[in-house]
Amino acid sequence: MTTQPWTATVLSIFPEMFPGPLGHSLAGKAMERDLWRLAAVNLRDHASDRHRTVDDTPFGGGSGMVMRPDVIGRAVDAAREGGAQGPLLYLSPRGRPLTQSRARQLADGPGLLALCGRFEGVDERVLEARGFEEVSIGDFVLSGGELAAMVLIDATVRLLPGVIGDAYSLEEESFSGGLLEYPQYTRPQVWEDRQVPEVLLSGHHERIRAWRQAMALEVTRRRRPDLLGEMTGHNPRTVGAAQPSADPERG
Amino acid sequence: MTTQPWTATVLSIFPEMFPGPLGHSLAGKAMERDLWRLAAVNLRDHASDRHRTVDDTPFGGGSGMVMRPDVIGRAVDAAREGGAQGPLLYLSPRGRPLTQSRARQLADGPGLLALCGRFEGVDERVLEARGFEEVSIGDFVLSGGELAAMVLIDATVRLLPGVIGDAYSLEEESFSGGLLEYPQYTRPQVWEDRQVPEVLLSGHHERIRAWRQAMALEVTRRRRPDLLGEMTGHNPRTVGAAQPSADPERG
Repeated sequence: MTTQPWTATVLSIFPEMFPGPLGHSLAGKAMERDLWRLAAVNLRDHASDRHRTVDDTPFGGGSGMVMRPDVIGRAVDAAREGGAQGPLLYLSPRGRPLTQSRARQLADGPGLLALCGRFEGVDERVLEARGFEEVSIGDFVLSGGELAAMVLIDATVRLLPGVIGDAYSLEEESFSGGLLEYPQYTRPQVWEDRQVPEVLLSGHHERIRAWRQAMALEVTRRRRPDLLGEMTGHNPRTVGAAQPSADPERG
Repeated sequence: MTTQPWTATVLSIFPEMFPGPLGHSLAGKAMERDLWRLAAVNLRDHASDRHRTVDDTPFGGGSGMVMRPDVIGRAVDAAREGGAQGPLLYLSPRGRPLTQSRARQLADGPGLLALCGRFEGVDERVLEARGFEEVSIGDFVLSGGELAAMVLIDATVRLLPGVIGDAYSLEEESFSGGLLEYPQYTRPQVWEDRQVPEVLLSGHHERIRAWRQAMALEVTRRRRPDLLGEMTGHNPRTVGAAQPSADPERG
């Protein structure tokens, strides 16, 4: 049995962007503790010409450049030979939307490989031939897949065992119960003439729990009725998101 | 009339994460050309104690810490006094999902202010008092708002005038026509026994255009029927996303 920690392998023409934000804060501290590892592969190292070309013009015409299948194929194969485990993901607005439950699945595995596209995209044949799963972090376009890969990795790494300590409850946060989070309040108790809701000062745990549950439901109804409508199964946008919980102990 | 470029002001306890990935590639080059600016404000500079405390325990109990309203209020007010313009955004999974059309709106304005939360969240009163708009980049939880703010800024900056040059067409990409992008192919023409689709080698522009339109529609139907269902207006998850275009010239 191997004790290799969870490992993210990113394939990019900007490996110097990594770890970037992932080297700070929660993910960065967890990396220092070797709870996870990051390998950034430069796609240009797998080019076959002396200019280290990774892209070319699209067949059929059109603007922009497309990443070559041979370069990506070689980079993936080399990463696999080097021991990279887990699903092969291509960050793309054409992909299946990332959800909290997908992040949880990824955290349960040995790691992931993430291809970061640039330019107009990637040759379709290599996506098919290597069995890439396309993942989108939202209905917007980024200048490349690097930030999307960081988001995917951050969402996953925080769910790895030991990354978030003791007191902090992953169960209470948004999506864990299928609802958005209830409003939070802290000191000062009065700020700019605004009071903290009376119930939160009551010390009455059952009333506080009921109030938070009601507020979470109200916020979700008002902002994201699609999360509630999910039970009907008609919204592919949120397939895989946590279901609203019937358990009153979860908020 | 001022000639101040588009400016993103981020409020964070990790200002050292910025510009990070935004200092590379497309956004980084545009920043060097002063097409946009980034100001990273350390929230701790607005704390009132010598420990530079920004958070405290939640009223009503529960795990985690909540960011104080007074600290955030002072940071926002100081940024506004310093000339920061544009909407006040709080990156949060409770927010309205970011869409390409929202990014376009933001690019049309003078800039934005983005509050990056950490811990359990932010005191609700300061969100109300300062009129924050809550924005989500997806149905997953990050270790903080910093990566989400970077995603928001990257999606917006690439739409600023002059950032993406000449040939590259913003019109042809995912969501511009309400559809996901058609598959792309480049050299080599045969790779691992896989051929480029014949039509793309035909040189027949009208057939190529029709094929790409049909493929874009098929990919969207298969992967994201919600984008097509949008015309019925029943899916709040994609409110504000580009509508499927009735114009056959757009892909």
